[in-house]
Amino acid sequence: MRNRLIKLPNPVPFSSWASIAGKWESEGPLRGKFDLVDITSRFGKKTWEKSESEMQRLALETALKKKDLSPEIIDAVFAGDLINQCTSSSHAMVNFQIPYFGLYGACSTSVEGLVLAATMISTGIYKQCGVISSSHFCSAQRQFRFPLEYGAISAPTSQRTVTGAGAFVLGGEGVAQITEVLPGIVVDSGVSDINNMGAGMAPAAADTLATYFRESCVEPEEFCAIFTGDLGAEGSALLIELLLMRGIDIRKQHQDCGLMIFDKNRQDVSSGGSGCGCAATTLAAEVLPRVIAGELKKILFIATGALMSPLSIHQGEDIPAIAHLVRIEGGQ
Amino acid sequence: MRNRLIKLPNPVPFSSWASIAGKWESEGPLRGKFDLVDITSRFGKKTWEKSESEMQRLALETALKKKDLSPEIIDAVFAGDLINQCTSSSHAMVNFQIPYFGLYGACSTSVEGLVLAATMISTGIYKQCGVISSSHFCSAQRQFRFPLEYGAISAPTSQRTVTGAGAFVLGGEGVAQITEVLPGIVVDSGVSDINNMGAGMAPAAADTLATYFRESCVEPEEFCAIFTGDLGAEGSALLIELLLMRGIDIRKQHQDCGLMIFDKNRQDVSSGGSGCGCAATTLAAEVLPRVIAGELKKILFIATGALMSPLSIHQGEDIPAIAHLVRIEGGQ
Repeated sequence: MRNRLIKLPNPVPFSSWASIAGKWESEGPLRGKFDLVDITSRFGKKTWEKSESEMQRLALETALKKKDLSPEIIDAVFAGDLINQCTSSSHAMVNFQIPYFGLYGACSTSVEGLVLAATMISTGIYKQCGVISSSHFCSAQRQFRFPLEYGAISAPTSQRTVTGAGAFVLGGEGVAQITEVLPGIVVDSGVSDINNMGAGMAPAAADTLATYFRESCVEPEEFCAIFTGDLGAEGSALLIELLLMRGIDIRKQHQDCGLMIFDKNRQDVSSGGSGCGCAATTLAAEVLPRVIAGELKKILFIATGALMSPLSIHQGEDIPAIAHLVRIEGGQ
Repeated sequence: MRNRLIKLPNPVPFSSWASIAGKWESEGPLRGKFDLVDITSRFGKKTWEKSESEMQRLALETALKKKDLSPEIIDAVFAGDLINQCTSSSHAMVNFQIPYFGLYGACSTSVEGLVLAATMISTGIYKQCGVISSSHFCSAQRQFRFPLEYGAISAPTSQRTVTGAGAFVLGGEGVAQITEVLPGIVVDSGVSDINNMGAGMAPAAADTLATYFRESCVEPEEFCAIFTGDLGAEGSALLIELLLMRGIDIRKQHQDCGLMIFDKNRQDVSSGGSGCGCAATTLAAEVLPRVIAGELKKILFIATGALMSPLSIHQGEDIPAIAHLVRIEGGQ
C-alpha cells in the first residue's frame, strides 16, 4: 500500500460555506455565528426527518447565496447523514439538478465529502463542488436511542446529537484552502458501548493523525490548531493519551468540535456534541471564519465516524470507527 | 452547470473482479458463473447481517486472489450496501487496513463506486482501487419489508432482493476498461409505491441515458448492449417508453440485470431482482466475462437506486431515484 496521505496537485479553496442550527446550538458557545437558526428546530416541516432534509437544502442554498453563486456552477454534490438510507441527503437533493454522490461515513461524512470533492477539483475533473452533511437531535434520538417522549436519561459518556447542517462550496476563489487530504481506515478497537462512542472513535482519530505525522514528516507544532469532529470529553482525553503513547503530543493544538459547539458545564449534553452536523456546522460557523481572519494559518481538521447501527449493537458487534483528515491553510 | 459526462483522461481497466451469491441466484440463469456460492446463504455466520458483511469480505478477497494480488496494492475501497448505517460494508472493511470511502446510493452503489474509483485512478491520485457492494435477501427483507417468518406475499411489481456481493479491482492491467462516467442526479417522479421501485427508478435511468446520448453525441447503435442495474420487468418497460418519448430507441441493446440474474417465469421473484448486489454480481459474473471474451466490445452499464427508507415511505414521501453510468470498452 502506498501512502494514505494525498498532497493535492493544486490547493482547493473554500469559496463559500453556510451553517444551519437548532435551538440548543444557538444557545451554546457558537451563538450568533450560524447563518440561520430555527429555535423550534422544525424548519417549517412536519416531521423531524423532513426538518433535517430542509436544513441540508437551506445550507447549500445559503452557501450559494452568500457569494451570489448559481446552483448551475456546482458540478457535483457529495452529501450524507445519519438517517437510515441517508434520506435527509437524497430528499434534499431533489431540489437541485446537480450530480449527487451519496456518502455514508457517520459523523466523518463532512470530511469524507471534503476529501473526495477536493481531490476531484484538484485534478481538474470538476471546477466547483458542494459538500453537505447534517444531523438532527430529534430524528437521531428516535432512530438510535429512544422516542423523545420517553424522556430517557443519557449516560455521562454519551453525546448529544447536534441539530445542524453545514454546506461548503469548494473550488473557485477563496482564502482558506485544502492542500492535503488523508482518508481513514476502519479501526475496530473492541468498544461496543453505544453510550461511549467517543471511546470507539478515538483510536481511529489516533490512527489517522499518527499516519499523517509519519507520512508528512511534520510535527504537531506546525499547526495552529488540530480539530477533531466529535470525540467529546471522553474521546478527546483518550485521543490525547493514545497519541502520547506513540510519542505525539497534540495537547496544545487539539480542540474538539463536540466540545466547541456545546458548553458541557452549562448545557445538559453529557460528554459533548456529536452527529454528522457537529463537525460540519463547527467548521462553517467557527473554524473557517477564523482561518480567513488570519487567526488560524494552518490547521488539521479530522472528522470521526462511529460505524455502527442500532441493530449491529443489539447483535453484540463492536463499534468500528473511521477518521478522515484535511489540511486547511489560510492565505499569507 | 457543465457537462455531467466525464471523459476520463486515461481509460481505467478492471484488473480483477469476483461475485459471491446465494441459493436462488445459483439456481437462476447465471448458475455456474459465480465465483463462490453458499446454498445456505449464511456464509458461516449467525446473523443475516454478518452473512452479508462476510460476502463483501469474500468478494474482495476472491477478486484479489484470482489475480494473486495483495490487499496492500489497493489504495482505497469504495463500498456500500442497503443495511441501516451501511454496516455490511464497514464491518467488512474491519478486515482490511485500506482507506475506505463509505457510499450510499441504494442499488446504484456499485456504479457510484466505479465512477469515483475510476476517476481517482484516471487522474493519477490512486493506482488501484477496490469497489464493493452487496445485498442479502434475508437482511433486506426484515429491514425493508417483513420478517421472513411472516411469509408475506409479494406484489407482482415488486422485486426480490439479490443475495450477492460483487467486488472489482480497478487500475493495473486489464482488457475491459472504463472510458467514460456520468453521475446521476436525484429525480423524483412522484412514485411512492414501495412495491414498484422499478417505476420509481426508470425516470432516473431515462434521465441519465438521455443526458449521456445528448452530451456524448453518440447513438444507442454505437453499443453492443446497454445494461441497467435492476429495473425489473416493470421498470424496464417504462424506461424503454420514457426514452422513446425522447426519440431514443434502446430496445435492441437494453438488458436489465434484475431480469438476467433471475428467471422470472421459473423463479418466484415477481418483477425480477434488485438490491445493491444485483448489478454488482451480474456485472462480475456475466457482463465483464463477455466483455473480455470479445463478445461485447462497447457497452453502457447503468445502476439505478431508489433513495427511500421504510420511514420515508411511512411518512408519505415519494421515492426519489438516481442512476449512475459507466462506459466500458473491451480490447481490440
